[in-house]
Amino acid sequence: MTVTSDMLRTCPADLGAADRETLADCIDRCLDCFQACSACADACLAQDTVTELRACIRACLDCADICDATARILSRHTGYGVDTARDVLAACAAACEACAGQCARHERRHGHCAVCAEACRRCAQACRTLLDALR
Amino acid sequence: MTVTSDMLRTCPADLGAADRETLADCIDRCLDCFQACSACADACLAQDTVTELRACIRACLDCADICDATARILSRHTGYGVDTARDVLAACAAACEACAGQCARHERRHGHCAVCAEACRRCAQACRTLLDALR
Amino acid sequence: MTVTSDMLRTCPADLGAADRETLADCIDRCLDCFQACSACADACLAQDTVTELRACIRACLDCADICDATARILSRHTGYGVDTARDVLAACAAACEACAGQCARHERRHGHCAVCAEACRRCAQACRTLLDALR
Amino acid sequence: MTVTSDMLRTCPADLGAADRETLADCIDRCLDCFQACSACADACLAQDTVTELRACIRACLDCADICDATARILSRHTGYGVDTARDVLAACAAACEACAGQCARHERRHGHCAVCAEACRRCAQACRTLLDALR
Repeated sequence: MTVTSDMLRTCPADLGAADRETLADCIDRCLDCFQACSACADACLAQDTVTELRACIRACLDCADICDATARILSRHTGYGVDTARDVLAACAAACEACAGQCARHERRHGHCAVCAEACRRCAQACRTLLDALR
Repeated sequence: MTVTSDMLRTCPADLGAADRETLADCIDRCLDCFQACSACADACLAQDTVTELRACIRACLDCADICDATARILSRHTGYGVDTARDVLAACAAACEACAGQCARHERRHGHCAVCAEACRRCAQACRTLLDALR
Repeated sequence: MTVTSDMLRTCPADLGAADRETLADCIDRCLDCFQACSACADACLAQDTVTELRACIRACLDCADICDATARILSRHTGYGVDTARDVLAACAAACEACAGQCARHERRHGHCAVCAEACRRCAQACRTLLDALR
Repeated sequence: MTVTSDMLRTCPADLGAADRETLADCIDRCLDCFQACSACADACLAQDTVTELRACIRACLDCADICDATARILSRHTGYGVDTARDVLAACAAACEACAGQCARHERRHGHCAVCAEACRRCAQACRTLLDALR
């Protein structure tokens, strides 16, 4: 049981098409990915090879910002704006896949890129699962 | 001259397909809309008729979060992730149009909804103009 | 093992005075509290008694924003700005305590306020523990 | 007349001790500084001398996050949490001064650091002015 699933369990608004577990999992994966990408951008910046990691840092910072916005939007259920949720989920899944691709290039060399790539993949998958449920 | 256009003028990275003025205008419209939506959600909450304004508050908070992420992502040019920029611009334009629609319902009664609806329309337009330039 | 502790384990930068576990716990409590406060503001908005919950909604939204910024700042370790971390931890602890106080007033009536108050208290405690470690 | 001052003019809530112009100016300076710091972190990352600019990038990213949270919190007036506003204004002013100090070291060499340092100084000043008004 996470704080997210506790909050959903006590939420007075109708959650619409999405079941609680799918929604809670997607929010938690966005928060994990938001943290991993914020930390991975910084860890890449600390490497000697930072000049080769610029595209990775950029992808991490963009992905963190979209995961942040997605977690915020998915945490609201009142006056449900399902079109906005769908748009942002699609953008988030794509940004996570792009970032996973960047991090995967360096994951043998940099442990933080391996952890971040996995967090991105799991977040992308959770976004796609929720997108399917909202269709 | 805004701070945004000064920053773009001194930016060492290649801006790609977008011209400086179009890009600076889009970032500034996102920042305006981020502020207007944050303030409008709060102003709606202070109204006696708050129960009728729930969908408007929800739309404003969602729009603020997407504008925030869009302004951050458009402010980066290194290792340019143009696909991510396009996805987020499309999501932002749609969220702004949805929020403008909600605010327009109350704009005769509530001055803050009139100001916010106009900020949303201008931001949606700037996002669509930049999207066209990036295609 | 959370994603946060995995990221810290693989971080190349020196973490300074804070030990890994204390730091990871504080970041995770900030993320939990960010989610709980975002969701609780929305859940309060959905209640019939929303006009009595305005101060609670305001406190939740402020607390969410500070927790968001604190999680981001604590996830960076390169070029360590310990003064900024301390200032934001102190502001975050105080905002969490204020929000816990608001939510506690309604926690018998609204399950989401009970969950949120507890997330705020745990985050405030984690911020104070990390603040002590950074002194 | 900015969007921010238009929103404040139409706000139904009592603004408390702060006069409209001081508050609007502080919000607008936070938005300018949020943008300048986001862009400056990225511009520093694009420089050949990026390894010498790590502390500057870190300071810019932290400052951007605090300015973002401060702009959001100052845009709310309902159920006014003046203690939270004061804490975050103090943290924001200090982060802006720290970032101005970092950027000033490189401002002859990098135009973006000169623009960013000036945006930070103006934001710090606006935060201090508003802090004085709220005491």
